Amino acid sequence: MLTDYLTMTAPLMTAPVLPARKPVAPELIASLRQRLGDRFSTSEAICAQHGRDESYHAPHAPDAVAFAQSTEEVAEIVRLCAEYKTPIVPFGTGTSLEGHVAALRGGICIDVSQMNQVLRVNPEDLDATVQAGVTRKQLNEYLRDTGLFFPIDPGADASLGGMAATRASGTNAVRYGTMRENVLSMTVVLSDGRVIKTAQRARKSAAGYDLTRLFVGSEGTLGVITEVTVRLYGIPEAISAAVCAFPTIDAAVDTVIETIQSGVPVARIELLDEAQIDAINKYSKLDHRVAPTLFFEFHGSDAGVAEQVENVKVIASEHQADDFRWAKTPEERTKLWQARHDAYYAALALRPGSKGWPTDVCVPISRLADCIAETKRDLAQSNIPSALAGHVGDGNFHLIFMIDPHAPEEIAEASRLNERMVARAIAMEGTCTGEHGIGYGKMEFLLSEHGAAVSVMQGIKRALDPDNLMNPGKIFHL
Amino acid sequence: MLTDYLTMTAPLMTAPVLPARKPVAPELIASLRQRLGDRFSTSEAICAQHGRDESYHAPHAPDAVAFAQSTEEVAEIVRLCAEYKTPIVPFGTGTSLEGHVAALRGGICIDVSQMNQVLRVNPEDLDATVQAGVTRKQLNEYLRDTGLFFPIDPGADASLGGMAATRASGTNAVRYGTMRENVLSMTVVLSDGRVIKTAQRARKSAAGYDLTRLFVGSEGTLGVITEVTVRLYGIPEAISAAVCAFPTIDAAVDTVIETIQSGVPVARIELLDEAQIDAINKYSKLDHRVAPTLFFEFHGSDAGVAEQVENVKVIASEHQADDFRWAKTPEERTKLWQARHDAYYAALALRPGSKGWPTDVCVPISRLADCIAETKRDLAQSNIPSALAGHVGDGNFHLIFMIDPHAPEEIAEASRLNERMVARAIAMEGTCTGEHGIGYGKMEFLLSEHGAAVSVMQGIKRALDPDNLMNPGKIFHL
Repeated sequence: MLTDYLTMTAPLMTAPVLPARKPVAPELIASLRQRLGDRFSTSEAICAQHGRDESYHAPHAPDAVAFAQSTEEVAEIVRLCAEYKTPIVPFGTGTSLEGHVAALRGGICIDVSQMNQVLRVNPEDLDATVQAGVTRKQLNEYLRDTGLFFPIDPGADASLGGMAATRASGTNAVRYGTMRENVLSMTVVLSDGRVIKTAQRARKSAAGYDLTRLFVGSEGTLGVITEVTVRLYGIPEAISAAVCAFPTIDAAVDTVIETIQSGVPVARIELLDEAQIDAINKYSKLDHRVAPTLFFEFHGSDAGVAEQVENVKVIASEHQADDFRWAKTPEERTKLWQARHDAYYAALALRPGSKGWPTDVCVPISRLADCIAETKRDLAQSNIPSALAGHVGDGNFHLIFMIDPHAPEEIAEASRLNERMVARAIAMEGTCTGEHGIGYGKMEFLLSEHGAAVSVMQGIKRALDPDNLMNPGKIFHL
Repeated sequence: MLTDYLTMTAPLMTAPVLPARKPVAPELIASLRQRLGDRFSTSEAICAQHGRDESYHAPHAPDAVAFAQSTEEVAEIVRLCAEYKTPIVPFGTGTSLEGHVAALRGGICIDVSQMNQVLRVNPEDLDATVQAGVTRKQLNEYLRDTGLFFPIDPGADASLGGMAATRASGTNAVRYGTMRENVLSMTVVLSDGRVIKTAQRARKSAAGYDLTRLFVGSEGTLGVITEVTVRLYGIPEAISAAVCAFPTIDAAVDTVIETIQSGVPVARIELLDEAQIDAINKYSKLDHRVAPTLFFEFHGSDAGVAEQVENVKVIASEHQADDFRWAKTPEERTKLWQARHDAYYAALALRPGSKGWPTDVCVPISRLADCIAETKRDLAQSNIPSALAGHVGDGNFHLIFMIDPHAPEEIAEASRLNERMVARAIAMEGTCTGEHGIGYGKMEFLLSEHGAAVSVMQGIKRALDPDNLMNPGKIFHL
């Protein structure tokens, strides 16, 4: 039975309101070309590639792409763009999911992928400073011999700058937090080309407004992030990973809720529904039983991990779980999590030619079982193929609709299901996105969720970017 | 040897620039009196009491005090004040330390101490929503039978609203984080009387700018916090507390650094220098050996705590520590931590008639030993009595100068020592305040630390409070 709040009027997905796209001044193009040489491109292919992310959202190519190599260079580019009142869209790896990089009003894309230097690692302070284009895997590779690691892992091998800009999260967030908790400081180029550092390197501070947290999750609308200082963690003495199937999705979710409520410090606790398991079995050549399944990982000392495992096994067995299947070697563990990270691509492969419509919500954990159960009932009444997976220890889960991009009725139906899921999550005191962000895909939902508070965000945006040059048309209308 | 950066020009402590204080319009006084009756006061004693905090800063009484009982009432008061362009200063328990509550430009103090209802506890989600006037001890008392607790503990029994406004921290922050990590959402009355909620109750969200973290630490300059939703934690199965003296302060600090770097999840690790130990021995009738000392607390399962204790004992013994003295009963443990929380009052009692000048800094932990050692050498060359204590697991420590408030030369000397300590911390990539905040006592230091970034803070302030009515004259000049 679907409850009443679902009859409330969900906001309609509206196409973004686009002002007429102004051509970029030839003088600006000439100046940028002179400054950057080969690292500036107006080629159609390059521009097209920079106007789309990994989602179903319509791409919008920028007029040109500037490949910056330093904070100073980004500042120069921004100053030039500001002079010509030309929009600026920062670009990391293009793996965002709500149209974040679409150049809705044209302008210059600043690609930071060549800003890929690890600038400094402070093992004693457990932190590292990197240029914005360094990816999470690159950083962990760099750290390999230090005994340290950086835990935040969205599915894609995203850039740290992009992860900061979208407040990224991932499978480890239940234990280590999200980018919100793990960015210590950033260097940011403001809309007028000024460069600021958001904080010192101390672990905590009560000195003024929390600019770090303001820029984390600002999706490029307040400035271009050029350097990021992140927290690192010691690689635990012991790591154990296991997979466990359940008779029903309710049983799996209840296991998660009880695990979290009993305070077991699990490092990862991931839910995959039967469709998602089927998808990764095929895509990653695995043989998991096709059933609602939890993937676990435990970090700690040998004794600590043994204790966590014991506690979780008791909870799981009370919910008729299968036996735990352990990843016995580091290689098996890597394979297990790579399969989890490839879930999106695996789901798409289930329906060749389909486009993915990924969406996510996050609710207080006490409402997680209800939210998932009602969502699954809703999906069962629809003919759109979908798969569900999630970082359920945080109350966060994802749906992927595999839609035929040429079938408007499928797009409309996915849109309807998405609206209902978001409305359901918000009614349960949750959020319209736990980790994907707003981009231009969830702007109407932001209004449903935040109401008058959106005007505060708009006020901040106007104060820091009065000409609306930084990634315009994202998060909210102005 | 004091290093070179201390010869850099430290900013001078300047008296706040106060515009002529305008009298409050009699019509506003009449309207507020009519609205609030007995809960509105212009009495000199009440006003004086609301214009000072627990520090050495010169008090500035407001023109009147309004005792609000609800968010709606705060909104009405703010709307009336806005109509008459009259400053507003929020007030919780008045236990801040940098002059936060001083009504530098007069106006109306909104005292939220009667907003003391615990509105909702969600044990399943490990969170609670309280009115802003609820104090941390009151909340923990309320939670007594739930098996849950709220860990953030500045020394004073401060209000949750005030703690959010100043981004408070305390002894447990090394394990549980500060108010930054532990506030999930707030209700805030903006400068025009509009009421917003900063976030939903989900543990994480990527929906728009992080308004929660913007208002945490904004010191009343962006709005009046009226309700706070905080994270709770299960009371650990096992808790052990111990005290351990060291031959030198370096040995104690090195023990802290190695403990943190080795990843032991200590719940509390507090340093007290010999002066501070002497003070609490006398004040709290204890018999600790007068030497640099660490107070520890360990949380976890029985086995987990035993493992942590073993690891820390090994590290401490390598630094010639005394034996650990254990607090064997919950009562002994409470007494131990109460003594730690009373450290400020104990230090003042060492010199009857003195006023306290408390200050704090926070540095990356790799610089903590240097920062403390250089600070202690600096203090040794001065005749101002002082005591040092700190939440050293975070790299955060405090000094208290016990000054004769009638001796200008003592004030000047404390000011000089404070400036040097702050300059030292900033040069070590630390912050001018780890947890006390800026108030009007550290405004010049904020500039030294943040440079151009202060203009971003000012821009946000102007956007949200164009008439500069909310706690004017704090954090930065406008």
